[in-house]
Amino acid sequence: MTRFALTLEFDGGPFMGLQRQAHGPSVQQAVEEAVLQVTGETVVLHSAGRTDSGVHALAMRSHVEIAKEIAPFRLMQALNAVLRPQPVAVTACEAKPDDWHARFSCTGRAYLYRICNRRAPLTLEHGRAWQVTRPLDADAMHQAAQALVGLHDFTTFRSAHCQAASPVKSLDRLDVRREGEWVLVEAAARSFLHHQVRSMVGTLALVGLGQWRQEQVAEALAARDRSRLGLNAPAQGLYFVRATYPDEG
Amino acid sequence: MTRFALTLEFDGGPFMGLQRQAHGPSVQQAVEEAVLQVTGETVVLHSAGRTDSGVHALAMRSHVEIAKEIAPFRLMQALNAVLRPQPVAVTACEAKPDDWHARFSCTGRAYLYRICNRRAPLTLEHGRAWQVTRPLDADAMHQAAQALVGLHDFTTFRSAHCQAASPVKSLDRLDVRREGEWVLVEAAARSFLHHQVRSMVGTLALVGLGQWRQEQVAEALAARDRSRLGLNAPAQGLYFVRATYPDEG
Repeated sequence: MTRFALTLEFDGGPFMGLQRQAHGPSVQQAVEEAVLQVTGETVVLHSAGRTDSGVHALAMRSHVEIAKEIAPFRLMQALNAVLRPQPVAVTACEAKPDDWHARFSCTGRAYLYRICNRRAPLTLEHGRAWQVTRPLDADAMHQAAQALVGLHDFTTFRSAHCQAASPVKSLDRLDVRREGEWVLVEAAARSFLHHQVRSMVGTLALVGLGQWRQEQVAEALAARDRSRLGLNAPAQGLYFVRATYPDEG
Repeated sequence: MTRFALTLEFDGGPFMGLQRQAHGPSVQQAVEEAVLQVTGETVVLHSAGRTDSGVHALAMRSHVEIAKEIAPFRLMQALNAVLRPQPVAVTACEAKPDDWHARFSCTGRAYLYRICNRRAPLTLEHGRAWQVTRPLDADAMHQAAQALVGLHDFTTFRSAHCQAASPVKSLDRLDVRREGEWVLVEAAARSFLHHQVRSMVGTLALVGLGQWRQEQVAEALAARDRSRLGLNAPAQGLYFVRATYPDEG
């Protein structure tokens, strides 16, 4: 058996999420079926993150175990040939030691959230960003975000369906910046709770709109109460951008 | 009558092009029908450029003449409400003098061509870039491109269906650069021939692949012969990005 690490890029739009779902297509199912077609083997895809329906990935990291003798490059090419025309691609593939695990070996995860801050409806970016029509103050959002960085109980920013054992997480970075009509939020941590990034972004947007004072973000965090959440930002603005592993420096 | 300048953004994928076509949907038809719905008036949309099927625009400039009294901002909002969910949006709207013409007053046009240079199929960028799987030498492409800058007879790089009176055009700028897996080509001129940008990009790609020597681009130009064209790059990588007007500095 060889353990292959796969880097996946996908448009989350047509999927019910990364993880297999009984009620609709998933990225996991697409990749597992592609492996079956290429190797004749039924495998399980393990991934660094679990992304919801509509959430995109620029570089999700996953792994599968395959008995068939196949070179990583040939496996990547064969999977891409089968995956097409679905919007999922394997952008890198390498053999890893048997104890390397896409989820459990991962020591850092990073997300990008893209807000298009303009009145005109989205065209080329439809389904790839959250459109906010009223002006956002990105500097105020960045200031308010800093109250969330560090070790906290993130119960306020956690989905009711979150399966994590503890709501206490250490948030390494939460940066907000404006680039023209775009407001970009970058978040990095060892791991995140379910809906954490979208919950933080939605709440920061209320600060950006002037509906919340900056201090209210820290107050909502301290309340450890989901009902104090400002707003859950929509899935289509969220991108999984990076997973880091100790063996990769 | 008021002449309104419109800035249009659109995804060219679902359209037969900007100009009205007998055989399928066009951006012009979508905007003219939206104006009819908003004002009750049948208008003609004039635009700075004519883009082919599949070609996108980040900021096409157009104009219409409307008798109804309406503020530019209200017109923009109303048009966007009607255009949705088609991937066409009015991103700016202003009243202009009666002698301002989106096409005839325009003194500069700029295009961006996006090549995604990688093996893995495109997902989020599907239909929004040209995928070239073998490695491109962007520096060699940029060097070769400089032979096309200046005043030349561009017959080699002109579609058989081009309606321009003369094949002689002055190309102000043709820059090629790499950004990660992207190779980006920026072209600027007072005006372009039909297929000129795509023809230039396709030919430069042959240089980037090492199939053509740099000097062959100049030789093909000097030949003034369409059959000497290297390759016409596909429409989906092309974006109309800017039109300039003397009154806008």
